[in-house]
Amino acid sequence: MEQSITLAHGSGGRLTAELVRRVFITAFDDEAGRRLDDSALLPPGDGRVALTTDAFVVKPRFFPGGDIGKLSICGTVNDLAVCGAKPIALTAAFVIEEGTQVAELAAIAASMAATARAAGVRLVAGDTKVVERGSGDGVYLATSGYGLVPDGVELGAERIAAGDVVLVSGDVGRHEAAVLLARGEIGFAAALESDCGLLHGTVAAVLAAGGGGVKCCRDATRGGVATVLCEYAETSGLEVSLEGAQIPVREEVGTVCEMLGLDPYYLACEGRLVAVVGPEAADAVEAALRGLEPSAARIGCIGGERGGRVWLRTGVGGRRVLDRLTGGQLPRIC
Amino acid sequence: MEQSITLAHGSGGRLTAELVRRVFITAFDDEAGRRLDDSALLPPGDGRVALTTDAFVVKPRFFPGGDIGKLSICGTVNDLAVCGAKPIALTAAFVIEEGTQVAELAAIAASMAATARAAGVRLVAGDTKVVERGSGDGVYLATSGYGLVPDGVELGAERIAAGDVVLVSGDVGRHEAAVLLARGEIGFAAALESDCGLLHGTVAAVLAAGGGGVKCCRDATRGGVATVLCEYAETSGLEVSLEGAQIPVREEVGTVCEMLGLDPYYLACEGRLVAVVGPEAADAVEAALRGLEPSAARIGCIGGERGGRVWLRTGVGGRRVLDRLTGGQLPRIC
Repeated sequence: MEQSITLAHGSGGRLTAELVRRVFITAFDDEAGRRLDDSALLPPGDGRVALTTDAFVVKPRFFPGGDIGKLSICGTVNDLAVCGAKPIALTAAFVIEEGTQVAELAAIAASMAATARAAGVRLVAGDTKVVERGSGDGVYLATSGYGLVPDGVELGAERIAAGDVVLVSGDVGRHEAAVLLARGEIGFAAALESDCGLLHGTVAAVLAAGGGGVKCCRDATRGGVATVLCEYAETSGLEVSLEGAQIPVREEVGTVCEMLGLDPYYLACEGRLVAVVGPEAADAVEAALRGLEPSAARIGCIGGERGGRVWLRTGVGGRRVLDRLTGGQLPRIC
Repeated sequence: MEQSITLAHGSGGRLTAELVRRVFITAFDDEAGRRLDDSALLPPGDGRVALTTDAFVVKPRFFPGGDIGKLSICGTVNDLAVCGAKPIALTAAFVIEEGTQVAELAAIAASMAATARAAGVRLVAGDTKVVERGSGDGVYLATSGYGLVPDGVELGAERIAAGDVVLVSGDVGRHEAAVLLARGEIGFAAALESDCGLLHGTVAAVLAAGGGGVKCCRDATRGGVATVLCEYAETSGLEVSLEGAQIPVREEVGTVCEMLGLDPYYLACEGRLVAVVGPEAADAVEAALRGLEPSAARIGCIGGERGGRVWLRTGVGGRRVLDRLTGGQLPRIC
């Protein structure tokens, strides 16, 4: 098999079949995928159906703590999990630039397969397209997920009420900071790994500890913890009050933010969730989160006033609104 | 709202939210999508679950008979339908190049929404990423589909048997020929529209007419009718015999093929299926297909010998093997 991708690998002919068989089917090793039918068929399941999709364009594709393949599986599994769904099966579609090394594709596929195994999900269907040199940037990837929400699990920001407690499952902003460092464009080196990781176990632990007191969960990806909280505030119409001193930020992340003038609360994580729970469930959920990741913390609460804003109490006793970002922070971090 | 896409539209901040709300949610108008949760939730359904995904990189994005948006919905609905599934819901992930016009995105989204309505499917979840100018080519799109296969419907190439009949649902190769003409790179103008279209109704008509005698269906996309038949031959291990004179090819498609030295049987269609049915069901299925599209035809049969090859009887009485393409025909036709 050739070592680098040519346009003929996207033609639907023998080279496409060889690429799919050698690289993807070998890595994903799923009965449904091996059949190469137009759709994968799965047995019926109980519960409401959860569907999600994400595109991935991260640059660089390999970074400390992960790569575009691991990121895609984590992102899709996490989007299912935070809605209360048991993740069951994923699909993956690739847009590959001519000239990409087959060995790199194989490494991405292997990483996807290992992460899917760790999450207990099947990779059941895929597609590959090839674009000319200069019309892409290596590999773009879109993954979609299918899961089932058991009866009785009801998560949603409209359930948020005054007095609820806000928790985060670990230190924030590490994914985006690690990707920025990996680009080598800032004059600062640090051994910082992305938090890129699976959250299905974390959600299960939160639900086991908090039961019906768990109002909603969301993973903090693009736009960071601040953007998730803006969404919560807008949906509930209530005010969110954050204690800046309680929000866990690694020292290296803080340094990157100071150097670049960024706000860590807006930096993407890829393995952190923000949960809102009733006050009666807060201690149990906090203990469960800390048991999985010591940096997990209670970071704020929901106020009684209406307004739909997020307030941050800063270290020096001030108070400011965390609004949605208007400009971008940095492109292609996921 | 700004008229062209900036990197900030991909940041996860206010501009991302505005783009998603104004362009996609408005067009797709689905309750699950409007919630902007990490996953869309759907009610439970009966039957085996069908999942599929496809990436779309077609160039140009607008061509006679369709556009990348219509193509994506047709492709995904058709992949579900040919497996016997009732298509229920789709997701869409966009990789957008900086500088793309918002008006163009809106036109693509409107086309997707109209096609989804025609198919009776919901567009329930999406994602948008933005890449720098020069790292993409306008818009790439990956759609995924979820459907349910009713009990009793069993389609698959392993059911193919000697004596079965091969039918095609209309003239072949028109999509790829129309896209090539739309590129304006060949010195030939013709009013040729892509066959880009939905096949869920066609599959329903085939199943209603042929019942359990319908062995398998597949839509002929990249690699054309010949590639579908190679897959059938390989899976069944049997020989497929085609009558070249019976395979419907429009005159303009034939002209394009002669000019470029292409074989029409390998040209992509985007609204044609190849069905294999038992001989007892062939007349009824042929009549049903002709009722929907007069150019539909019976094009061959399955031989008794083992071998797993596709044989074409040519007009002049010769016979040759149709193998999988080794090189590409042309890139980015879907």
